[in-house]
Amino acid sequence: MNDIKKDDASQSQDQAASEKEQKHIERQKKIKANVDKRVAQATEERGVFLVITGNGKGKSTSGFGTVLRAIGHGQKAGVVQFIKGTQWECGEMNILKQFDVQHHVMGTGFTWETQSTETDKAAAKVAWEKSKDMLADDSINIVLLDEMTYMVKYGYIDLEEVIEVIQNRPTMQHVIITGRACHRRLIELADTVSEVQPIKHAFDAGVMAQKGLDW
Amino acid sequence: MNDIKKDDASQSQDQAASEKEQKHIERQKKIKANVDKRVAQATEERGVFLVITGNGKGKSTSGFGTVLRAIGHGQKAGVVQFIKGTQWECGEMNILKQFDVQHHVMGTGFTWETQSTETDKAAAKVAWEKSKDMLADDSINIVLLDEMTYMVKYGYIDLEEVIEVIQNRPTMQHVIITGRACHRRLIELADTVSEVQPIKHAFDAGVMAQKGLDW
Repeated sequence: MNDIKKDDASQSQDQAASEKEQKHIERQKKIKANVDKRVAQATEERGVFLVITGNGKGKSTSGFGTVLRAIGHGQKAGVVQFIKGTQWECGEMNILKQFDVQHHVMGTGFTWETQSTETDKAAAKVAWEKSKDMLADDSINIVLLDEMTYMVKYGYIDLEEVIEVIQNRPTMQHVIITGRACHRRLIELADTVSEVQPIKHAFDAGVMAQKGLDW
Repeated sequence: MNDIKKDDASQSQDQAASEKEQKHIERQKKIKANVDKRVAQATEERGVFLVITGNGKGKSTSGFGTVLRAIGHGQKAGVVQFIKGTQWECGEMNILKQFDVQHHVMGTGFTWETQSTETDKAAAKVAWEKSKDMLADDSINIVLLDEMTYMVKYGYIDLEEVIEVIQNRPTMQHVIITGRACHRRLIELADTVSEVQPIKHAFDAGVMAQKGLDW
């Protein structure tokens, strides 16, 4: 009698597991059908303007990660770093410079280190000229303008010119702008916008910025 | 008279510009003082557990960008990809495999492509075993568990074991988990959590996923 009961329980467990599995498969089928439908609708192939903004950690690494992805397919990239200065060794560029990547660093360091608008403005102008060259060169598949949002915010680079240059870039060229407080006109213009929000940060718990993770 | 007026106007403009510049410098000094204070307080150096979650674009690229940063400083990395399957050529890994990076791909493809929990579970188990090896190896500076959140969500990997293994990893090792819908227990355990929110996505406007940008 006990044995029969156990068998019943075991059978009922098996049945429950099988029903759960069946439900999972049905759900996945629905997801797949939906994804397939959306993929079928997305047929346009062109350069995308991507903005990665917000106050959370992961904006620049996401930009550099996308450049890594592009050069991994044999594409050519351009990178302009608007904030990182000469005193910061940059792990990413140590690798990327071994590949087909044009590169310019603004070189005055963080603006709160230099504290001179004239020096910063002149350096930003040079960096923006380099950016414009890249944004006019159709041999470059993807351009990363790392931390450029601050230059627009401070008025070091003219917003209207940025919009015009991005709009007139080669049709198939992707461009990525990273940084906090992105101007709403750039967000309007962008095809894809991600906002990285900080839920918490190790720095606030007393953990220092570390090589390999933070720069 | 007109000339004098013009000079006055010009002088007043110069003065306004100088005051604006002075204000900017004062503001930057305050920012710098605040940053310096926070940097002085953040003195602990240890491995950081970083979660990059949310529904926006840029989570995996941020993870891979951080790995790029680490190997750029001569550090050793481990990467396990939990969702990307054999049918997707991965731009990032084409480059990273040329450096000191241990790598495992789960290899069944997207779970809504396979639609078999048993196959997925077995593949997830193998990928998790590889992850555990990396999370026990103190020669590895940084471990990226790309899109692992889904494995926990589907119950393919045991949450309690994940927590235990992450807590017991080498003291100086960084670990990054990416993917949507990260379990709240992992968010609680993490040192740094960023949530990538989608403001808009080119895909929704009919632009297809493109090599170099989207994979």
